[in-house]
Amino acid sequence: MTFGERLRDLAAERGRLCVGIDPHPELLESWGLRDDAAGLAEFSRICVAAFGGTAALVKPQVAFYERFGSAGFAVLEETIAALRTAGCLVVADAKRGDIGSTMAGYARAWLADGSPLLSDAVTVSPYLGVGALRPVLELAEETGRGVFVLAATSNPEAVELQSITGADGRTLAQRVVDELAGYNAAHGSQGRAGNLGVVVGATLGAPPSLAELNGPVLLPGVGAQGATAVDVDRVAAGVAGLAFPNISRAILTAGPEVADLRKAVADAAVDFPGLPR
Amino acid sequence: MTFGERLRDLAAERGRLCVGIDPHPELLESWGLRDDAAGLAEFSRICVAAFGGTAALVKPQVAFYERFGSAGFAVLEETIAALRTAGCLVVADAKRGDIGSTMAGYARAWLADGSPLLSDAVTVSPYLGVGALRPVLELAEETGRGVFVLAATSNPEAVELQSITGADGRTLAQRVVDELAGYNAAHGSQGRAGNLGVVVGATLGAPPSLAELNGPVLLPGVGAQGATAVDVDRVAAGVAGLAFPNISRAILTAGPEVADLRKAVADAAVDFPGLPR
Repeated sequence: MTFGERLRDLAAERGRLCVGIDPHPELLESWGLRDDAAGLAEFSRICVAAFGGTAALVKPQVAFYERFGSAGFAVLEETIAALRTAGCLVVADAKRGDIGSTMAGYARAWLADGSPLLSDAVTVSPYLGVGALRPVLELAEETGRGVFVLAATSNPEAVELQSITGADGRTLAQRVVDELAGYNAAHGSQGRAGNLGVVVGATLGAPPSLAELNGPVLLPGVGAQGATAVDVDRVAAGVAGLAFPNISRAILTAGPEVADLRKAVADAAVDFPGLPR
Repeated sequence: MTFGERLRDLAAERGRLCVGIDPHPELLESWGLRDDAAGLAEFSRICVAAFGGTAALVKPQVAFYERFGSAGFAVLEETIAALRTAGCLVVADAKRGDIGSTMAGYARAWLADGSPLLSDAVTVSPYLGVGALRPVLELAEETGRGVFVLAATSNPEAVELQSITGADGRTLAQRVVDELAGYNAAHGSQGRAGNLGVVVGATLGAPPSLAELNGPVLLPGVGAQGATAVDVDRVAAGVAGLAFPNISRAILTAGPEVADLRKAVADAAVDFPGLPR
């Protein structure tokens, strides 16, 4: 079973929503928690209770754990494991990217059986070329886990860089999508969605075409940044059942009560129903 | 005092060499160590003893610690602190890259006073735009610590992507260099090298021009990948005193004896002398 199929199945029950866990200092403070590893652990426990049984996909933001070093990573390990036990799929938002044996090290950290940080999927960055990501793409293929590669992001500073157009008329973002579509095609020929996905901002006016991707799509930019369900459908044309808008702060500001957070997830999920199987 | 100036001072004593600490599984095995957190700790202690007092710049590769989760990060914290105590400068090879408060989280992890992972510099990746890296660039400016931004790397998969040329005739890699040169210019007008550097492969036939950078350069590709001191001088024309070739495996395979590793550093440093102050 591929990561794309697992995601599609769970979305049929829970809706196509990726809920972010972003314990940044201001949010910890607004929840009445200290900005230290203990506050981080309490924040994370609340998120596990609120999201683990309600959202299809949950995305802890690694940077907010990494700032506390090994103590933060210990909290992240517990959080990922507890989320997975609760039944959601977990994508670690790490945006790692390197080459060769170093990339294999990152792949092992996030996607290998037995790793303390084992997640269902991980985000990666392709500045060194999609080909350099091969160790993590191959491990995802072997294990039926997922990878989301940054393609076209929603921040204004990225648009210029990612829309640079090469001699073949394709943007940088489109090249990333096309390389991954090549990996997913083997699954498509068997009627399945693949393991490999992309990150594409839902606010983009000229996004890359995802029509050939046959894999999951993570779409930041919904909610606080202004994109709507209509934008998600437009950007993810051709992979609608695999399009997961990421909502973080618009849900997290409903905390710290678990019931309020659950309600915020349920309310948001209404706009992004999973397709019937 | 800027990171560039600290680096130049230390290179005048120790030579312009960046020694990598890459504890990948095969290397641990060849040193007679187990591929677990205890083996990682012993490998790292040997590297601290060998490199801390001899190399100007030492570069632990974060991926090889991250694969052991929080236990690996605990070893990395000890390793970075011990290296800095021993007198070298430490660049954490993390290749992080994100936006906004998330990027600020990574900046805090690697460059903020009091962080358990505090390093003298960190490597970052610009796929989201150099502008998105502002939180880490600004923290480097505030603290006199360093950032090395991936510009043009030495792996073959990257060349196509990073040499895409925009409407203004500049490659993607050149745009990265130029944006950083803008930050460093204020230091240049006071006769100082800046805090912000780039990573450029020493094997590249058509590297970006670094003539205006006025900041440090990390050059992978020397040794195992075939680049020589002549290539380093060619690629780093205009910033010669700030050009640090990175040598990892060619030195590490001399281990596990500390004396042998020290000799390998001293032998390699002969080819890359620091300029007199």
